[in-house]
Amino acid sequence: MKLIRYGQPGQEKPGILLHDQRYDVSAFGQDYTEDFFATNGLQRLAEFVQANAGALPPLAADERLGPPVARPSKILCIGLNYADHARETGATPPPEPVLFMKSTTAYVGPNDDLVIPKNSTKTDWEVELAVVIGKLASYVEEADAQAYIAGYTLHNDVSEREFQLERSGTWDKGKGCDTFAPVGPFLATPDEIGDVNNLRLWLTVNGQPMQDGTTANLIFKIPFLISYLSQFMTLLPGDIISTGTPAGVGLGFKPPVYLKPGDVVELGIDGLGTSRQVVKAYGQN
Amino acid sequence: MKLIRYGQPGQEKPGILLHDQRYDVSAFGQDYTEDFFATNGLQRLAEFVQANAGALPPLAADERLGPPVARPSKILCIGLNYADHARETGATPPPEPVLFMKSTTAYVGPNDDLVIPKNSTKTDWEVELAVVIGKLASYVEEADAQAYIAGYTLHNDVSEREFQLERSGTWDKGKGCDTFAPVGPFLATPDEIGDVNNLRLWLTVNGQPMQDGTTANLIFKIPFLISYLSQFMTLLPGDIISTGTPAGVGLGFKPPVYLKPGDVVELGIDGLGTSRQVVKAYGQN
Repeated sequence: MKLIRYGQPGQEKPGILLHDQRYDVSAFGQDYTEDFFATNGLQRLAEFVQANAGALPPLAADERLGPPVARPSKILCIGLNYADHARETGATPPPEPVLFMKSTTAYVGPNDDLVIPKNSTKTDWEVELAVVIGKLASYVEEADAQAYIAGYTLHNDVSEREFQLERSGTWDKGKGCDTFAPVGPFLATPDEIGDVNNLRLWLTVNGQPMQDGTTANLIFKIPFLISYLSQFMTLLPGDIISTGTPAGVGLGFKPPVYLKPGDVVELGIDGLGTSRQVVKAYGQN
Repeated sequence: MKLIRYGQPGQEKPGILLHDQRYDVSAFGQDYTEDFFATNGLQRLAEFVQANAGALPPLAADERLGPPVARPSKILCIGLNYADHARETGATPPPEPVLFMKSTTAYVGPNDDLVIPKNSTKTDWEVELAVVIGKLASYVEEADAQAYIAGYTLHNDVSEREFQLERSGTWDKGKGCDTFAPVGPFLATPDEIGDVNNLRLWLTVNGQPMQDGTTANLIFKIPFLISYLSQFMTLLPGDIISTGTPAGVGLGFKPPVYLKPGDVVELGIDGLGTSRQVVKAYGQN
């Protein structure tokens, strides 16, 4: 299945994507929340869709999409998880995963505006494969981790490099600005995706290719990440883990290149669709 | 007012503390959630309490307390915000606030067990004054910040020093373990507290004094912190900002001293009550 959420920000309704057509499943009666995933929601939804095949209301193609999962309890991000990206930032690949957190107030729809914060001069892009957790995960073994995955989605891990690296303390300061986590267009359940370790992911700015990588180059693979993170904290249903970005971010250019108002960022991952953000200055309509 | 939440974990009900007696206010009809604070809940609750004065059901003193605010969207923490603590950890006071984030899955009641994670040898304590945000805050001026405060509460910012400092990446890995954020006993609205910049805060382990400081020594004061953080992300009603810890943590001893199963941690802040956590090994009842 491919799950979508549509409607105005904060008032999204659940939908699904079937053969490239969007359908409303408000009648299912539940948004894609922590409780949805915790109570076998994916299976219940599949049964609902099957029972209502042919009778689901189609949605217009221009409906705004929200992120495909309701606001999660946390967004965990892995840093420096592609060797080429670690190199371009001057870092060495870490001996174990680098964890940082993204404020959930950054969480927006896949095609929403990307707002440059006030006083920012170094707003940057990062195409990433994100995993959505399907059930409560605590001290999970790597061999069992697959069962904890609800699905996969596309994430632009937008980053303000001055806030992240030059303003004291951890990376969190430059990762959680409002609109810095466009997620979607949809959540794909694992059966929709072939080999998750062989997906091309790419990002362009104003049509110019910037990132073009493959998840084959992930240093730490997804089952290991789920097991690893679950040693440090409980992962809740609906939580998002973003797995890191390949080379080609603005910080890696010499000199660095950052986003400015009017830029258009487009990104995609094989089988997970594409997203598109128009860059705006703070306060710009 | 002093707000409490009581009952079993995940099923807490709202209450208040009046002249050291706890009362049930379930009949008010709303938990202390983001929506409660966003919709003028503190004033509505005050009116409810006044209208029902003398008729509120008292609670037994042995009811379990939950954290005094429902699970927030985020827990933001300030590091190295007391000069004596920065010194004891070998750090210099930072030029601007150090931010890190704590997973909300760490969030528990004030007197719940403190569980040492599997594979932990460096679980440490940190008494802190925490602020609860009362309304949506984005790019707030320091002079206006007071209006964004719902109240204050007591927080033990429990920290695993190896996970935090020796395991690659940001501090988040050692700050968000399950049970690492005991909060409460109550949320005190600002009118209940005298000068918030002149509160004694202390912590003992097995009755031995470990921390004994005063909020007079906060490097960055609360209105500045709210203004500062709101430049990087929107603060939501119910969000928690923990303002840092004074000297006396286990990491600061030579050699360092860490918690072990059976230890009892007690802490308090003038006017904000006390909390008490019994330290358990993972899996111990």
